[in-house]
Amino acid sequence: MPSISNRGHQMPASPIRKLVPYAEAAKKKGTKVFHLNIGQPDIETPAAIMDAIKNNHIKVLEYSHSAGNESYRIKLAESYKKIGANITKDEIITTTGGSEAIQFAFLACLNPGDEVIVPEPFYANYNGFATAAGVEVVPITSYIETGFALPAISEFEKVITEKTKAICICSPNNPTGYIYTPEEMELLKALVLKYDLYLFSDEAYREFAYEAPAMSALALSGLENNVVMFDTISKRYSACGARLGALVTKNKELINTAMKFAQARLSPPGLAQIGAEAALDLPDNYFDDTKAEYKSRRDTIIGRLNKIPGVISPNPGGAFYAIAQLPIDDSDKFCQWLLESFSYNNATLMLAPATGFYSNPELGKKQVRLAYVLNNNDINNAMDCLEKALQEYPGRTN
Amino acid sequence: MPSISNRGHQMPASPIRKLVPYAEAAKKKGTKVFHLNIGQPDIETPAAIMDAIKNNHIKVLEYSHSAGNESYRIKLAESYKKIGANITKDEIITTTGGSEAIQFAFLACLNPGDEVIVPEPFYANYNGFATAAGVEVVPITSYIETGFALPAISEFEKVITEKTKAICICSPNNPTGYIYTPEEMELLKALVLKYDLYLFSDEAYREFAYEAPAMSALALSGLENNVVMFDTISKRYSACGARLGALVTKNKELINTAMKFAQARLSPPGLAQIGAEAALDLPDNYFDDTKAEYKSRRDTIIGRLNKIPGVISPNPGGAFYAIAQLPIDDSDKFCQWLLESFSYNNATLMLAPATGFYSNPELGKKQVRLAYVLNNNDINNAMDCLEKALQEYPGRTN
Repeated sequence: MPSISNRGHQMPASPIRKLVPYAEAAKKKGTKVFHLNIGQPDIETPAAIMDAIKNNHIKVLEYSHSAGNESYRIKLAESYKKIGANITKDEIITTTGGSEAIQFAFLACLNPGDEVIVPEPFYANYNGFATAAGVEVVPITSYIETGFALPAISEFEKVITEKTKAICICSPNNPTGYIYTPEEMELLKALVLKYDLYLFSDEAYREFAYEAPAMSALALSGLENNVVMFDTISKRYSACGARLGALVTKNKELINTAMKFAQARLSPPGLAQIGAEAALDLPDNYFDDTKAEYKSRRDTIIGRLNKIPGVISPNPGGAFYAIAQLPIDDSDKFCQWLLESFSYNNATLMLAPATGFYSNPELGKKQVRLAYVLNNNDINNAMDCLEKALQEYPGRTN
Repeated sequence: MPSISNRGHQMPASPIRKLVPYAEAAKKKGTKVFHLNIGQPDIETPAAIMDAIKNNHIKVLEYSHSAGNESYRIKLAESYKKIGANITKDEIITTTGGSEAIQFAFLACLNPGDEVIVPEPFYANYNGFATAAGVEVVPITSYIETGFALPAISEFEKVITEKTKAICICSPNNPTGYIYTPEEMELLKALVLKYDLYLFSDEAYREFAYEAPAMSALALSGLENNVVMFDTISKRYSACGARLGALVTKNKELINTAMKFAQARLSPPGLAQIGAEAALDLPDNYFDDTKAEYKSRRDTIIGRLNKIPGVISPNPGGAFYAIAQLPIDDSDKFCQWLLESFSYNNATLMLAPATGFYSNPELGKKQVRLAYVLNNNDINNAMDCLEKALQEYPGRTN
């Protein structure tokens, strides 16, 4: 039998999906499972998107331009004015989800063995894309005590080597919800210029900022050749299944290089582009209701979490995630126990152990990520479960 | 300014798309361009696909399972019985086009520096995916004189080294239209078993076989752990823009490994899966009309080509491509000249230089690929242009 590749062996399994069989078993027993484990919004996809897709008059569902339909890119570029970015259609490659934008950037910017610095906890799939590209993720730890603010620049400088090619940030952050302040963005800019690095900026959650807005890296002047922005319609429009994102950069050599990877895979999904283009005509106040709903949920979940004895959860400024520190021995064991051995009012909850969001899983052993993608009533019921569970859990610590 | 990666520099530009600016310029001058250059079918996408997409009742366009919707995989697996393959839903990963299936296979099976043997001329994008994965494509030349039949097995054995991990075939073939006979498939099976290699089988054009059927590699018994089949709905249902394909293998370790790459990118396109599932309910005779149409076009184009003095084009058994050898100095120059400097009855034609389909471009310097994705009338008009052009072309040879 022919063998599997080394990167195939090294490729990390999804840390979130490994609990799925336990959730399925719980449901089979008749237990209600509150899903706070995954960033799948429950908010409805805007009718404008679904209607545009339904009202198409396509006779032949053809390949689109490898960079995506020109009409879509023109409108998307125009929309970036709102975030202070001066972008043309030729500085955008439409991708299959934000995921493909990350892949293109890793492949086009980094050689095998090169390093990308990422503040942790971070989106677990960066590890997967790095493994696929033969690239090393070098973590810089951020801490719950500071609400997961940007670590000191000196911490970055300690790990910068000649192999360092990029810094990758995500703001508003998955999994912490933290939004980098304009001051922190300026510190990153100075660092990136000093060492001539790329700044990869994952802005999947840009619209979900509840007090101060999230600054786009594209708005940092003088950083045009360094910034690569990853965008996606997945969270913005509750359209995760559309698989439509974008790689945006003003670096001409880089966009030309990324285009070669885009041409090899021919084109991004066609139907999704029709929906995404229609979404750009939504009124500016479209996000008001969605934001108000998420903000209210955030207030509910953070309020409830911090009232549970031994639990700490800093107030996240954006996205729809919170990290909570729990009085437990091991978050993987606890999350499995919730599904396997616990119920309250015939219900339990599913959480993401934070071990998967740190390069060193030990750092996440007492933390979980909660995605507030349920309505306030369900969140309250889920928090009732969590409170009760923490009283009963055999691995409780003090 | 940070630098581009080595693989970014090495990544080949699309050989087909580099002529696009010349075609655009010709159209601006008012010249009609017959597009025989790209495998974009003109046949209508079945109404069953478009209707299923239009009639969806989706409220939230969610991520699907990373392997694709279970209901789709169950029906797709069932459909493979028709090609003599015994496949379950768990042996299928739904991918973003056939392209992603190729990428997953290269990443999961091959280490950087490993080699995959591919009979040439071959689908140019294999080169791109190989470059992205750090893998080497080792070509074995097939010849127009034999209609691009499988090269002698001894030719494969000459280049097999300890780095050889796979053989990649495409039958019916892009760009030659050749279909490997059952005898040739058995020879490949013996070779693959002898050296314990993977057999990657790109079956994008399986239904388009005009005399003898195309044998699926999945129907080769005793090769269950070696065969990885790449499938796609792009050509089958004229749905290139849907971006939906599949990786199919009975090798459990491999499917589990490929799933880790699939989980990292979350899910394949959702709307396309709805359409593709509906297409599986089309009656068995759905392909009859399409096949009859392509066969008639093939007969037209091959008949016309071989009547032009100095032109040789073997009769392809499948797909919708033909390779023609022309009395010219350089196919890249000729194809550009057709767009830049030639017209007949205010029309010209766009062809794909075969240089892009060979590892050594010299081998394709007198050859072009023609995709018969136009109706018979347009094909005849295009052949009138070609006949005239070959009389006028300054680089004509004898």
